[in-house]
Amino acid sequence: MALQYPNFAFDIQHTDPKSGARIGKLTTPHGTIETPNYIFCGTKATVKGVTPDQLREAKTDIILANTYHLMLQPGADLVERMGGLHKFMGWDGPMLTDSGGFQVFSLGEGTMANEIKGKAKGHDNKSLLSINEEGCVFKSYIDGRKIKLTPESATHIQQQLGADLFMQFDECTPYHVDKDYTARSMEMSMRWGDRCLAEFERRHDGSQAMYGIIQGGVHEDLRKISAEYTASRDFFGTAVGGCLGGTDEEMELVVRGSLPFADPSRPVHFLGIGQLKDIFRFVRLGVDTFDCVIPTRLARHGTAFMKGVPGETINLKNARFREDNTPLDEDNGVSASCNFSKAYIHHLFKAHEMLGMQILAQHNIAILNRLMREVREAIKAGTLDELEKEWLFK
Amino acid sequence: MALQYPNFAFDIQHTDPKSGARIGKLTTPHGTIETPNYIFCGTKATVKGVTPDQLREAKTDIILANTYHLMLQPGADLVERMGGLHKFMGWDGPMLTDSGGFQVFSLGEGTMANEIKGKAKGHDNKSLLSINEEGCVFKSYIDGRKIKLTPESATHIQQQLGADLFMQFDECTPYHVDKDYTARSMEMSMRWGDRCLAEFERRHDGSQAMYGIIQGGVHEDLRKISAEYTASRDFFGTAVGGCLGGTDEEMELVVRGSLPFADPSRPVHFLGIGQLKDIFRFVRLGVDTFDCVIPTRLARHGTAFMKGVPGETINLKNARFREDNTPLDEDNGVSASCNFSKAYIHHLFKAHEMLGMQILAQHNIAILNRLMREVREAIKAGTLDELEKEWLFK
Repeated sequence: MALQYPNFAFDIQHTDPKSGARIGKLTTPHGTIETPNYIFCGTKATVKGVTPDQLREAKTDIILANTYHLMLQPGADLVERMGGLHKFMGWDGPMLTDSGGFQVFSLGEGTMANEIKGKAKGHDNKSLLSINEEGCVFKSYIDGRKIKLTPESATHIQQQLGADLFMQFDECTPYHVDKDYTARSMEMSMRWGDRCLAEFERRHDGSQAMYGIIQGGVHEDLRKISAEYTASRDFFGTAVGGCLGGTDEEMELVVRGSLPFADPSRPVHFLGIGQLKDIFRFVRLGVDTFDCVIPTRLARHGTAFMKGVPGETINLKNARFREDNTPLDEDNGVSASCNFSKAYIHHLFKAHEMLGMQILAQHNIAILNRLMREVREAIKAGTLDELEKEWLFK
Repeated sequence: MALQYPNFAFDIQHTDPKSGARIGKLTTPHGTIETPNYIFCGTKATVKGVTPDQLREAKTDIILANTYHLMLQPGADLVERMGGLHKFMGWDGPMLTDSGGFQVFSLGEGTMANEIKGKAKGHDNKSLLSINEEGCVFKSYIDGRKIKLTPESATHIQQQLGADLFMQFDECTPYHVDKDYTARSMEMSMRWGDRCLAEFERRHDGSQAMYGIIQGGVHEDLRKISAEYTASRDFFGTAVGGCLGGTDEEMELVVRGSLPFADPSRPVHFLGIGQLKDIFRFVRLGVDTFDCVIPTRLARHGTAFMKGVPGETINLKNARFREDNTPLDEDNGVSASCNFSKAYIHHLFKAHEMLGMQILAQHNIAILNRLMREVREAIKAGTLDELEKEWLFK
C-alpha cells in the first residue's frame, strides 16, 4: 500500500501562463503556508541572532534545522526527550530538516556551498572517513569521534527531531567528479531513498512527510533518471540537490533537466539556493520553496539585502553610511528595517556590537519575506517581469 | 543666580521608617521613573544583545551610555548631528551618561570594576598618559591617538550626546593609593566639579541635569568633605563614586560616610554597583538608582540572575541544565524568561549560538526590573526584610 500523508497537502492554486511560475498552498501539521516561499536556516535549532518572536514579526512562515549539527549537539535523543524541535526551540510554525548528507559530504563547514555551485577545486574531505552502500562514517567536528550515518539512522534521527518536512539521505555529489562517479553516486542515493522510505514507514504516525532528492550533477540524462525515480516513489515532495553547476546557466540547466520529469503535483524545494535573482529565475521553472544561509550569514558580516541596488546588497561597514540617517527600508514593516539609521548600524559594526548583526538578520529575513509576498502577488497578477525589474538592479 | 532644572524633579514620596529606604519619582524630559531603580549599561549606545523593543518588553525604565566609548566611536559630533543619543539608538526613555572619568582612569577596559572594589593589586595604567589640574591625556584604545579630556570637554561632549542626566568629570581615585593622594585627588575633583557646572551653564537649555560625584576613597572624613561640597553646589543629583573599598563592609562604610552629608532632597546614584544583595543593602542607606554592567556581561558568559539561589546566579553552561525542561522564571513576564527551557539555553551556549546571550541578557534585565518593582512595593509596605529573604539565599 502506498504511503499516505493525510495531514499534509500541496494545492496548486494558479499557474501564471506568462512566467510559468505557480502559486500553491502547502499544508503541514503546524500550519499552511503559501508558495513560493523562503525557508530560513536555523542550523543548530536557532536562526542565528533572531528570536522566534522576531521571526514572527518579520512574517516568517517556515524555517529549517540541520540534522548533522543537531545529531552532534545536543543529540537527537535529547531533542526528542525535550518534546521535539518545535517545542525545544520555541517555533510553532512549519519546519523542515535536511538529512545531514549535505554537511557530511562537505569539505568542511560552509564550503559545500561553493562545491555545489562548482566553485571548489578539489575533493579533500578530511572529516568523511568512509562511504559505501551501507552509509558513511565521518569524524565529528566537535570532538573528533567517529559517527556513522545511514539512510535508516538519518531517517530515524529526523523522526526524533520531529520537523514537519524532511529530506531523504543522499550523497551530495560534488562538482569536480566525473560523470561515471556522479551516475554511481546518484544510483546509490536512489537505493538510499528506498531505504529511507522503508524506515520512515516503520514509525510513520502522520506528523511528518518526506522529500526525495533529485541528484545527477550537471548531466541532463542523469537528472532525468533521478527525477523519474523520485516521481515513482511515495515521497511527499521533490527536492533539487547535489552539484548545481558552476554558472547561473548550468544551474538553470540542472533545474530544467530535472523538474519536467518530477511529479508536477508535489511541492518542489531547491536546496541551498536563495539570492534575490535566484528567486525570480527559479520560480519561473516551478520551484516552490528556497533555502539558503545567506540572510543571516550576510547579516553577521554587515551586509543587508536591499531592493534595487547593484549586487542586491549593501555593506553597512562601508564609510559612506557613517552619517546616513535613513533607515534600511521602511516598507518592510519590521522594527529592524524601520527604527534604526544606517549610521547607527554602521556604528554598531565599527564598535563590534552584536546588535548590528541582530538588526541586519531580522532585516534580511523581513525583506526576503516581503519579496516572497510580492512575488506571489505578481504571479497572480501576471506582473513578475515588472517586479523583477523593480527588485534587481540591471 | 542658582542653576535651575525646570524640566526635572525628584519627589520623595515615602520613606520607610523601618528600613530607612525611600520611594521617589524622578522626572526627566523623557519621562518619569519611580525609584529605587536600576540603570542598564548601554556602553556604546547599545545595551549589549538587546533591542530597544526588548528593553521595553522587559519593563526597563532607564539606561545609560558611556562618554569615553562614544567620544572615540562614533564621536560626539556625529551623535549630535544624528540628533542625539536618544534618536541615534532608538531609546525614547530617560537616559544617563557618565563623564568618561571612570574609563579614562581605569587600568584597561573592565578592570576598574575590580579597582573600585579594591581587588586590583597595583597601578599600571598604560593608556593614561598624564593627569594634572587642567585634565588628562590618554591613548585611544581604538587607534592609539592621544585624547585630551578636561572638565569642560567632558561636559560639552555630554551636552552633545544629549542624555537627560549626566555626571561631572572627576578623577576616579584608585584603591591602593594613600590617603594623601586620595585627598588631593578629591580636592581636584571638587574644583573640576565647579568647572563642569560653569561649562554646563554656558549652554544650559533645560534638557539636561548634572550630578556631582562624592569622592574620598574609604576615608570617612574625606567622604564628608566631598559630600558637603556636592550639597553646596547646584548639582541636580548626587552620585557616590571612586574607590568603594575592598569588602562589603568597607563599601557600606563609604556610603554611610557620604550620604548623611549630601543634600537629602536630591536623587542619589551609586556608580557601578548592582548585585542583588547590593540593592537590598544600599536602598536602606538612601540610594535611589544603581547601575552595573553585570546584567549583560554575565549573560554573555552564560549566567542568569535567579531569585533565591546561592550566589544569586546560575550558569546555564553547567551540565546539570542539559535536560532541564523548565523556563528561567515565568514570573518575569518576558519571553526570554518564559519561552525557552534551560536545556535549550544550555544547548545554545554549547553550540556557541548568540541567541543564548540574547536570551540571558533580556532575562537578566527583566528580573532586575522585577526586583526593583518588588523592592518599591516592599518599601511602601514596610516588608523589605521579608522580600530580601525571598530573593537572597542565606
